[in-house]
Amino acid sequence: MKKQNVSEAVIRRLPRYFRHLTELNQAGVVRISSSALGKSMGLTASQIRQDLSCFGEFGQQGYGYNINKLLHEIGNILGMQAGHTAVLLGAGTLGRALIENFDFEWSGFHLMAAFDVRPEMLNQTVAGVPVLHIDQLEGYLKEHPASVGILTVPKSVAGAMADRLAEAGVKGIWNFTNIELNPKNEDVFVENVHFSDSLQTLSYMISEDV
Amino acid sequence: MKKQNVSEAVIRRLPRYFRHLTELNQAGVVRISSSALGKSMGLTASQIRQDLSCFGEFGQQGYGYNINKLLHEIGNILGMQAGHTAVLLGAGTLGRALIENFDFEWSGFHLMAAFDVRPEMLNQTVAGVPVLHIDQLEGYLKEHPASVGILTVPKSVAGAMADRLAEAGVKGIWNFTNIELNPKNEDVFVENVHFSDSLQTLSYMISEDV
Repeated sequence: MKKQNVSEAVIRRLPRYFRHLTELNQAGVVRISSSALGKSMGLTASQIRQDLSCFGEFGQQGYGYNINKLLHEIGNILGMQAGHTAVLLGAGTLGRALIENFDFEWSGFHLMAAFDVRPEMLNQTVAGVPVLHIDQLEGYLKEHPASVGILTVPKSVAGAMADRLAEAGVKGIWNFTNIELNPKNEDVFVENVHFSDSLQTLSYMISEDV
Repeated sequence: MKKQNVSEAVIRRLPRYFRHLTELNQAGVVRISSSALGKSMGLTASQIRQDLSCFGEFGQQGYGYNINKLLHEIGNILGMQAGHTAVLLGAGTLGRALIENFDFEWSGFHLMAAFDVRPEMLNQTVAGVPVLHIDQLEGYLKEHPASVGILTVPKSVAGAMADRLAEAGVKGIWNFTNIELNPKNEDVFVENVHFSDSLQTLSYMISEDV
């Protein structure tokens, strides 16, 4: 199965399936029909069957999906068993919020270290993660290759930091800086969390028809 | 123009247009063709013309778009001049990161107050925003109606807090709890920022073909 044949819309629904199935699993549900899964997610049964058929054969006609098995398979498709590693750049309030609250391991990532420039941040650990000086980035990544660099730095240095990460060999950048990044190395994937896009969409939804 | 006729994909591109046009505006660009705008955003010119045509007539054949005017019009469509107000529930690390770093005013929102339960958080201000006890929520909202409630509380109380916000009359919930919310009042829009969905999508993109 080649990835380029799967639409981005389908890919972006996979983590939602993973979340829902995890919740069902935790609630003790063992097996679910595509129509029941669809109902709980606001999708049609045929949409779900169509999405999953992009990746192979799951479930049995008339028997629904074994939740444990489907979870494992979706996790596998998402690369969650691939042993991904990450470093975080910018241990400010948002960076620390991610380090302290976000469950990287649940998503299949090991967060190895954070980097900053402010002397008061350095040589300490945040929730067990060491904070190093940004000058150490390239040396550190040579010893500890990272799959992904997380950018929670100020906008003004976002582009330069993205280039350094790409240069040092990360495969992806998780970008919280609200800047569109175009790292020089075009093989690096950039995934954006644009808070303002999300809030402005909500603004649209709650505003009167114009 | 009725909103229900516009697809969600188009709506979600509007904030991206707004961001790009803001950057162009700040760089001193006055007018841009749909093909140049498209190139900078990774879209085709016809896609851009089609998106914007959902909302009326913008730009002049052969003259491109006046950036200032288009910014104003997109901002208007997004409801950014509607005087939206917000309260934030959960002044933990992530809540404080939003209060301190996120530019609510730029997105057309005034963040009025934050609410928490932890005594050490109360009766202080974070970046000028007062932190009140959650017991004061309903009384506060009666005096200061909020368009939107922002949820940065623990998962375990997310559903209950969403119901209280909906009951107290908010029109939308900006949800960071990684829980799917179904507030009892179905007129309340929920906009989710699911960090794990985003990271897992990146995980997919950087993993080898399976």
